[in-house]
Amino acid sequence: MAETTKHCQLALDPTVRDAARQRLASIRGHVEGIVRMLERDDVYCVDVLRQLKAVDGALAKVGDAVLRSHLHHHVTSARERGDADVIVDELMEIMKYR
Amino acid sequence: MAETTKHCQLALDPTVRDAARQRLASIRGHVEGIVRMLERDDVYCVDVLRQLKAVDGALAKVGDAVLRSHLHHHVTSARERGDADVIVDELMEIMKYR
Amino acid sequence: MAETTKHCQLALDPTVRDAARQRLASIRGHVEGIVRMLERDDVYCVDVLRQLKAVDGALAKVGDAVLRSHLHHHVTSARERGDADVIVDELMEIMKYR
Amino acid sequence: MAETTKHCQLALDPTVRDAARQRLASIRGHVEGIVRMLERDDVYCVDVLRQLKAVDGALAKVGDAVLRSHLHHHVTSARERGDADVIVDELMEIMKYR
Repeated sequence: MAETTKHCQLALDPTVRDAARQRLASIRGHVEGIVRMLERDDVYCVDVLRQLKAVDGALAKVGDAVLRSHLHHHVTSARERGDADVIVDELMEIMKYR
Repeated sequence: MAETTKHCQLALDPTVRDAARQRLASIRGHVEGIVRMLERDDVYCVDVLRQLKAVDGALAKVGDAVLRSHLHHHVTSARERGDADVIVDELMEIMKYR
Repeated sequence: MAETTKHCQLALDPTVRDAARQRLASIRGHVEGIVRMLERDDVYCVDVLRQLKAVDGALAKVGDAVLRSHLHHHVTSARERGDADVIVDELMEIMKYR
Repeated sequence: MAETTKHCQLALDPTVRDAARQRLASIRGHVEGIVRMLERDDVYCVDVLRQLKAVDGALAKVGDAVLRSHLHHHVTSARERGDADVIVDELMEIMKYR
């Protein structure tokens, strides 16, 4: 998996990174569980959809933690650093208001 | 409609504000059109849902423009200004990644 | 606002239609309030985003009520009626899982 | 992973099930890739968010395929079968309009 951005040596906060990695490892296990669930020929559509929704919610929690860290450590200091335009464009690509 | 926040005299950029007001006035007209649509006793459910989806998409465009302006004018300079914690908390409340 | 579909004389349930119309009229007032909010030159970005989010939530409630009624009155009987393919295609256009 | 529903012997269509299982296996590999990405101490927040977004999009495609199959095979025939109320309640729990 190649990085698509490499500006300014901005790295994800180590504590957030560790927590995200552990959560993602758990999500991988959850997805593995759905793969096995789909091997059974009597699996019910709605049960699959519920599991997908649960994975989605777990991914959103990881995303929120990474986003909050990015805002705190990199976005709020972008003007000082001088890369505000790039930072804003990147954010608008991956976020939406709600 | 009362404001719920009033910190640091941060105001929405006038150009973005004008564009948002015009778009919202148009959205108000669209909603008015759906109200009239709902007065007809033969209106079809899916037609209503399509119109709601269109309004939703129009609102999202306004939201994106306001969000982009907020990121550009206020969030990227929060560290300099000294209100980064509040700015990040507010954003996490109204945004989500993706 | 023209309807885009007109199959099988399926009409939105009158009770749901009345409730939706009243909610939409209230949403129109909410949007009008945001238009006025945007006339003030000191309006704060995040306050606008919060109001847009509130409108979005209100629209989603209307959409959910119309969708539930459509599922109950029209979708679950589509096989009997013989228009299941059209009904499913329409739904997939306006819905998503989660 | 226990099923939470078991009514009427409704099973996911075998072709859709196979395709979903293969896609989920691929998504599991993608998640595994993000776990490894998060082991690097120079990983950039936005690159993580982009990968999470990609996984999310892939999950949504699986969900859409399962949902379409469920609508086609089970929901449109619910009135005939006599379980329309349960079917609608389940759907409203996992779907939303738009």
